[in-house]
Amino acid sequence: MSAASLNTGRELHGVAAQLYPICRSITGSGVRQSLRLIRRHIPLVLREIPSGGAVFDWEVPLEWNIEDAAIVSPDGERIVDFQQHNLHVVSYSEPVAAEMPLAALEERLHSLPDHPSWIPYRTSSYRRSWGFCLRHETRQSLRPGNYRVDIKSSLAPGSLTYGELVIPGRTKEEVLFFTHVCHPSLANDNTSGMAVATALAHWLASGSRRYSYRFVFAPGTIGSLCWLKQNEPTLGRIRAGLVLGLLGDPGALTYKRSREGDTLTDTVAGYVLSQIDPDSNVIQFSPYGYDERQLCSPGFNLPIGRLTRSVNDGYPQYHTSADDLALIQPDCLEQSLAACKLFVTVLEEDARYVNLSPKGEPRLGKRGLYGSVGGRSPAAREQAMLWLLNQSDGSKSLLDVARRSGVPFGVLREAATALQQSGLLRELGGSSRARRRRSTAEPGSPRHGSRANRSKGGDRRLARRKRGKQ
Amino acid sequence: MSAASLNTGRELHGVAAQLYPICRSITGSGVRQSLRLIRRHIPLVLREIPSGGAVFDWEVPLEWNIEDAAIVSPDGERIVDFQQHNLHVVSYSEPVAAEMPLAALEERLHSLPDHPSWIPYRTSSYRRSWGFCLRHETRQSLRPGNYRVDIKSSLAPGSLTYGELVIPGRTKEEVLFFTHVCHPSLANDNTSGMAVATALAHWLASGSRRYSYRFVFAPGTIGSLCWLKQNEPTLGRIRAGLVLGLLGDPGALTYKRSREGDTLTDTVAGYVLSQIDPDSNVIQFSPYGYDERQLCSPGFNLPIGRLTRSVNDGYPQYHTSADDLALIQPDCLEQSLAACKLFVTVLEEDARYVNLSPKGEPRLGKRGLYGSVGGRSPAAREQAMLWLLNQSDGSKSLLDVARRSGVPFGVLREAATALQQSGLLRELGGSSRARRRRSTAEPGSPRHGSRANRSKGGDRRLARRKRGKQ
Amino acid sequence: MSAASLNTGRELHGVAAQLYPICRSITGSGVRQSLRLIRRHIPLVLREIPSGGAVFDWEVPLEWNIEDAAIVSPDGERIVDFQQHNLHVVSYSEPVAAEMPLAALEERLHSLPDHPSWIPYRTSSYRRSWGFCLRHETRQSLRPGNYRVDIKSSLAPGSLTYGELVIPGRTKEEVLFFTHVCHPSLANDNTSGMAVATALAHWLASGSRRYSYRFVFAPGTIGSLCWLKQNEPTLGRIRAGLVLGLLGDPGALTYKRSREGDTLTDTVAGYVLSQIDPDSNVIQFSPYGYDERQLCSPGFNLPIGRLTRSVNDGYPQYHTSADDLALIQPDCLEQSLAACKLFVTVLEEDARYVNLSPKGEPRLGKRGLYGSVGGRSPAAREQAMLWLLNQSDGSKSLLDVARRSGVPFGVLREAATALQQSGLLRELGGSSRARRRRSTAEPGSPRHGSRANRSKGGDRRLARRKRGKQ
Repeated sequence: MSAASLNTGRELHGVAAQLYPICRSITGSGVRQSLRLIRRHIPLVLREIPSGGAVFDWEVPLEWNIEDAAIVSPDGERIVDFQQHNLHVVSYSEPVAAEMPLAALEERLHSLPDHPSWIPYRTSSYRRSWGFCLRHETRQSLRPGNYRVDIKSSLAPGSLTYGELVIPGRTKEEVLFFTHVCHPSLANDNTSGMAVATALAHWLASGSRRYSYRFVFAPGTIGSLCWLKQNEPTLGRIRAGLVLGLLGDPGALTYKRSREGDTLTDTVAGYVLSQIDPDSNVIQFSPYGYDERQLCSPGFNLPIGRLTRSVNDGYPQYHTSADDLALIQPDCLEQSLAACKLFVTVLEEDARYVNLSPKGEPRLGKRGLYGSVGGRSPAAREQAMLWLLNQSDGSKSLLDVARRSGVPFGVLREAATALQQSGLLRELGGSSRARRRRSTAEPGSPRHGSRANRSKGGDRRLARRKRGKQ
Repeated sequence: MSAASLNTGRELHGVAAQLYPICRSITGSGVRQSLRLIRRHIPLVLREIPSGGAVFDWEVPLEWNIEDAAIVSPDGERIVDFQQHNLHVVSYSEPVAAEMPLAALEERLHSLPDHPSWIPYRTSSYRRSWGFCLRHETRQSLRPGNYRVDIKSSLAPGSLTYGELVIPGRTKEEVLFFTHVCHPSLANDNTSGMAVATALAHWLASGSRRYSYRFVFAPGTIGSLCWLKQNEPTLGRIRAGLVLGLLGDPGALTYKRSREGDTLTDTVAGYVLSQIDPDSNVIQFSPYGYDERQLCSPGFNLPIGRLTRSVNDGYPQYHTSADDLALIQPDCLEQSLAACKLFVTVLEEDARYVNLSPKGEPRLGKRGLYGSVGGRSPAAREQAMLWLLNQSDGSKSLLDVARRSGVPFGVLREAATALQQSGLLRELGGSSRARRRRSTAEPGSPRHGSRANRSKGGDRRLARRKRGKQ
Repeated sequence: MSAASLNTGRELHGVAAQLYPICRSITGSGVRQSLRLIRRHIPLVLREIPSGGAVFDWEVPLEWNIEDAAIVSPDGERIVDFQQHNLHVVSYSEPVAAEMPLAALEERLHSLPDHPSWIPYRTSSYRRSWGFCLRHETRQSLRPGNYRVDIKSSLAPGSLTYGELVIPGRTKEEVLFFTHVCHPSLANDNTSGMAVATALAHWLASGSRRYSYRFVFAPGTIGSLCWLKQNEPTLGRIRAGLVLGLLGDPGALTYKRSREGDTLTDTVAGYVLSQIDPDSNVIQFSPYGYDERQLCSPGFNLPIGRLTRSVNDGYPQYHTSADDLALIQPDCLEQSLAACKLFVTVLEEDARYVNLSPKGEPRLGKRGLYGSVGGRSPAAREQAMLWLLNQSDGSKSLLDVARRSGVPFGVLREAATALQQSGLLRELGGSSRARRRRSTAEPGSPRHGSRANRSKGGDRRLARRKRGKQ
């Protein structure tokens, strides 16, 4: 594992830039090459799932590899050339070597009349076919005549590859980060997610944490299905997580809720975004997007949301050659990473406390916790202590108090430590953690997420529940 | 039953125009004549409830009939003439033949100073009295002198008449449509409701449906109480329904919630209005209005709301001669009918499904359900399939999915059929329907409506319930 | 007890003006003098808690009294003089008689650069110290030289004093009003609360009421803790209550919720403010403020909110000499008192009823309750009757109906009486009251408040509960 720093927007953009030129697809050497490149930063393990294997309603496709592709004009020019841009060939195109008149060729071409200088991205992973994508301005310059088409690709038994990294914590409860690695030269739509996920894993590699963290770098759809199939018995350990994608464009940070909409992930991510950027958005779940489609299908229903900037199909350059390294911006990548880190921090440090001196306010002054000359409103740290003492009846966590009071989570965390050291607060984490272990969901249960939520409310004897309305 | 079409706004206005001239009241030949006119379109059954019978806290009044009424001026002119407009006589006026000075006559007159050319509508159904309504401009022209008043009416034992039609469905669960038929020449305030109810029943007459549909055309208040009394043992079958009234004026469509506010009717009607007209309104229940006052009294508490355009007393022409055939508009009547039809359609076609391939998205492409060249966002029908597959864990109905996703109900319905045919969805209707029959409420129970709701949630083993918040 | 009227803003301002000059502190003769002055209006009982006694995490401080204090300039002038304004000395200053150069004196001075003509208020109750507060303009005029400082105070064993008044009701269930009495010459920030509490107690002294009313006039923090300690066994009787403070300034009336946020107090006070002033505010609980900090600490969690106008630290004159008798305004004091009275009225008169003729609307006309000539919308009182009859299924109280319907509470109360007299409604209060007695919380239980709420929902057999959503 590289010891190099991987924190700044510039460094994140550097990782994306290394990954950008590679011709990735759902399978093949492009994915392997990308994952090995990431392995320079984090100790990713590569998994190979053989072609033809059944994966729920799907099967692993033949492995696709490509060496070259071109359209040669009647006068012998490589007017559409895979070597110039890997978007020029429809992904998963079967091999072809033929000559045909322009009219026949036209049926194999894809271009964008509204953006004549952009090359579109097209794929035909699940139907044998072939085709080319080209600038509309090129297409319009084509003259009648015989064209040679040449695609030097192979579709053959092989395997689907994904990368995985588990960073063990003090418990087996897991937080999952998932990013897709199946697109060719599209910068925002897959290298930005890979770069942020890599940097996050790099940051998480040191130190002791409550949760185990699992990173999956996999091809979209069939890749996440393969991973789900491999890990079905232990999905019940997942307490929270994010699908990471489209994290470098200048759109505002956006959190897309999980299918359930009120899981631990939703609560924490919603809070995190409100702290990172007042212009950020929280949007509802929908079954269109990236691998949240699979992770949140009703048979799994994992407590996973998605962190994104623009949504898919939400910016004009989406799935075109204009989604390039100029679209993704170092400061946007860095802010996306910061959101992930705060997400982890809140998950790790959230806890419930009980006030050990609950009758009236304890005297902070005699413990050196409070200014003793009265008459002025207490400062932020003192407000944090007052809130914590007042709310700590065992039913509310630091995050609950942060959301109710407006006092930042970090300030509350420090105040909690000071109050603990003065013997005024006791953390309830221990018993809660024990209970959480006991309640680990059965393998394959579709309700893992809710267990995490429910166990978080443990130690009910101390909790003073909300009064039912009359 | 007429085979004639009864769908267009023009046709609805025609029905209203036939009904408009008749002098209806709470009892008497005007109601019977109106119901017989409606019987030309739908096979209404007329019920007669004898005068004097006790109906809860009320009793059926004497039957009122009127032949003629007039005020004759000192110089012998019929200056206020029932033959000119039936609003001229206070409804339920007892017979009178007398001569009196202007000062004494004044106490029997009703007019509208703010609208001097309109005749007001007044009734005195439950206190023996008599009186005349006239244009304020006429009233101001009256000179001192002796006036003759003549009301050729009768108040005698007879009966109260209402019309009823039951269109049986596959189950005995009922949907009720209720409209009042007790106002004389007021177009919006009762002929519009009668016309829409007639056309809706006409539309419902053919085809097989899940629910049985019951239409009641009855005088307001005492008429609905009579109907409630007659049907008390089977009120428990009512699952949903609407009071129909004021459906022709140009005000925006308005749904007034049931007393409970969250019944099946409220959910469906709220959705229907959002689809029919973005300017439509949903308002809270109040105990002022039409027969929802009786149907939603605490002793019955039926799951019935009201479909209206303007609310009662919500337009200046309300209860005056200006509520005439020019106020009600063909396109408004047609839109009101369309809302009723969509209400029925959603009630009939709503169902819960379970995804039979719930682990990940099933492969739509290999079943011919999905475009197989990727890279573009799926079209509306494909979005509908993704939503259905994702949400169909047995706990959510088509209507739930329509409200969450924004995909129109009809598009979801078609997608559900396609997915069922491909073996990907199974409808849960069967078991739900069976359970619903078992749970039919006891006669007279004031909680019928809630049964419908609760049974709708049946087959709980399959339902994945919303997670409790921590 | 004085028989004099104590209702008008002018009279309230007069009480405040009598209390204003007294040098109050947490302990000492100023508090006793103030409470004796209040005893001219209401039969307050004075309680003395000896110095040094333990009170939860605190102890009762030594009693502080002061005779005189001054800073004498090098040329012999009393340039800062306690006799001129009692804010000039830091409250709880220990005795001192010394001479010192200006530089040393500076460390003992407090002034407000932004408001150079105002004297700040400072206190050092829990750390032995001394100091002076002065106008910044005075401070800036000080020339180098030797200053004499003289504080003729005493800190000696004695007691803390608070005043208490219980006005017994038909039940032992209590409503608590709490106001602080520990500030010297600050008009809004403590004499306004004392004046309103005194007038409210005066108004409550006559007549028979359901609840017992308890008034506490006590020093802030340690005073409320002493009272809590003395009354811990019977805190379970408290059903509702308000901390009263800052009730004379021209800011809008503001209700600060209890810690739980949904107690009886919160419901009633929120309604009261909406009726008294459309510009009033309801704000969330926070653990910064007056004695709600202690009463709503997690170990007591009483159903107590706070009635205030500006919040503490919410107006520039707060805790300065500019919080004087000119800041508090007769009409504001009077409006604050009116809110307290309506709070009591709603608490006393709220009740649940059951409609004894629940099937359809009963005939109001034959009982003389309703205009019998129809055609016009019923007036306010008739609307009140319709709402009551419709909602009175035993589950909803007058206040529930007032909030839902918009009909004022008082109009509903009168309508309820008329309907009761006609035999159409029966009050459920009796059984509810009995049940409430049985369910009185154990001494010291931290959940007293919720009992009140729960018992309010009694007589469940008659209640038709809200239908569960599917």
